[in-house]
Amino acid sequence: MGFMASKTLLSAVELGLFTELSNAGALEGDELRARLGLHERAGRDFFDALVALGMLEREGGAYRNTSTTDLFLDRTKPSYVGGLLEMANARLYPFWGSLTEALRTGEPQNEAQTGENPFDAIYGSPERLRGFLKAMTAASVGTAQAMAGAFPWADHQSVIDIGCAEGCVPVELALAHDHLTGGGFDLPPVAPLFNDYVAQAGLSDRLTFHAGDFFTDPLPTADVLVMGRILHDWDLDEKRMLLDKAYAALPDGGALIVYESLIDDDRRVNADGLLMSLNMLIETPGGFDFTGADCQGWMRDAGFRDTRMEPLVAGQSMVVGIK
Amino acid sequence: MGFMASKTLLSAVELGLFTELSNAGALEGDELRARLGLHERAGRDFFDALVALGMLEREGGAYRNTSTTDLFLDRTKPSYVGGLLEMANARLYPFWGSLTEALRTGEPQNEAQTGENPFDAIYGSPERLRGFLKAMTAASVGTAQAMAGAFPWADHQSVIDIGCAEGCVPVELALAHDHLTGGGFDLPPVAPLFNDYVAQAGLSDRLTFHAGDFFTDPLPTADVLVMGRILHDWDLDEKRMLLDKAYAALPDGGALIVYESLIDDDRRVNADGLLMSLNMLIETPGGFDFTGADCQGWMRDAGFRDTRMEPLVAGQSMVVGIK
Repeated sequence: MGFMASKTLLSAVELGLFTELSNAGALEGDELRARLGLHERAGRDFFDALVALGMLEREGGAYRNTSTTDLFLDRTKPSYVGGLLEMANARLYPFWGSLTEALRTGEPQNEAQTGENPFDAIYGSPERLRGFLKAMTAASVGTAQAMAGAFPWADHQSVIDIGCAEGCVPVELALAHDHLTGGGFDLPPVAPLFNDYVAQAGLSDRLTFHAGDFFTDPLPTADVLVMGRILHDWDLDEKRMLLDKAYAALPDGGALIVYESLIDDDRRVNADGLLMSLNMLIETPGGFDFTGADCQGWMRDAGFRDTRMEPLVAGQSMVVGIK
Repeated sequence: MGFMASKTLLSAVELGLFTELSNAGALEGDELRARLGLHERAGRDFFDALVALGMLEREGGAYRNTSTTDLFLDRTKPSYVGGLLEMANARLYPFWGSLTEALRTGEPQNEAQTGENPFDAIYGSPERLRGFLKAMTAASVGTAQAMAGAFPWADHQSVIDIGCAEGCVPVELALAHDHLTGGGFDLPPVAPLFNDYVAQAGLSDRLTFHAGDFFTDPLPTADVLVMGRILHDWDLDEKRMLLDKAYAALPDGGALIVYESLIDDDRRVNADGLLMSLNMLIETPGGFDFTGADCQGWMRDAGFRDTRMEPLVAGQSMVVGIK
């Protein structure tokens, strides 16, 4: 019955509850209910369920954020990671309602059911694109910070993130390593959002946006290329094509870093990675998640001479291939 | 993102995966996939996710149930509790997708949205009624077994469960205490299902079905009356009316036992009880869950002279009122 707890948090994010409490500090239940526009039947059970789930604190009749929800679920803070939860609430929760159908048919259960390409749907609307990219940033920022400490960046001068979204990964890497330059590669509509995000970090002089389509264009070159949660969107032939393009774009001695919620090699521990692969069943025609061993095998087939896998944070890992 | 793990288990129950494996003992992944009618894209990630979630075991390429899933999720065993999960999968998961709307409007988000009374919908179809009652049995059997050891049954001769469904509670009580007689009270369509269930337990000579509607009829009399997950379906006036009727039906010295996933008196620990109250928001026009202190207060208002609360099992508790 875990979906109930999960959806309670997702609805709280949707309603902006944590943002409201962050602004106010603490609010009596009736005042909080009124500010969120909730029915009188609903407020107290909803707020107290969030207390019991460890998402709110309550003193007397007043509710306030925990230090964690205040940091990560207040929309006005740069540390906000709720974009991912907003997307999960609006899209994934209902699509997962058709998991059984996906398992039986192998067909996506998202916007594709009505003939729409989900990526077209996302990229075709500035508002949806902004929401999607913010969700990707939320999902990547912790991993990017871990990656900044887990790779010998001193040995390399430049890095480009392939499928960079807002540019969270190159921003975190450049903030941690003053010598790094580079940027990100993504579809043209992403450019203004990348440029805004990089400018806010004060890195516009070091990080550049490269517009392109990794199905039809070659990849830009840098000492290090990064692909995070890109390969899992695509089928095996497409995965191999992307690895071939990365190999072609790198100089000798250059490195490709692939990071994902990698499935453990024995496929029996990392539930998140396996569930993410079921999410690819629901979201894409051929995508799937994979183990570090799978990825290292494909990298070697593409020509990479050394490969290794290293854990990053929160179940995320990276596979490094050296050309 | 916990809804993903939750829905994965719910789909496995829907597909009869644990029943198939219980029959077969162990099956290679391809064979299991074929027997369940799953697409080749889907099987391995689905099965391995269930391994990672602790619901299946895998040796080589063959999957088998854990001892727990074999006992509780094989449809052919009397210990099957999957009826509750089947109901959650078919109804509650999608209805909870409208939690935000329920919070804003205070209106049910189930069949009632199309003008249908959910109880009429359930009781009007023999198949849905059977599924619902089996779900209620699944939800109650462990609590009933705990209740058999947590009350001084030796001091009482008869017990009737109000809103008895298949009769799981009187059956467990009568199996544990040879001297007890009594039965269950529920709407007339429940009679054949109660009688079948009681006959299978070999208790037809001690347990009798009483047909009636607790809104329009008086309650039958017994030394002990039980109401499990009944009060939470109704608003406060209806709760008080039901407690008044129970008081009227009991002899002096008789006991009313109310059991629910009671919310802790401070409303900050029992997330299950608080989430169940949100489930009542989604499922009913006025229902809500409550604390032991709430219930004892209503019982005293109804005239009960002694009241007490005792924990049972798995977050369930009982409130006892003595007339």
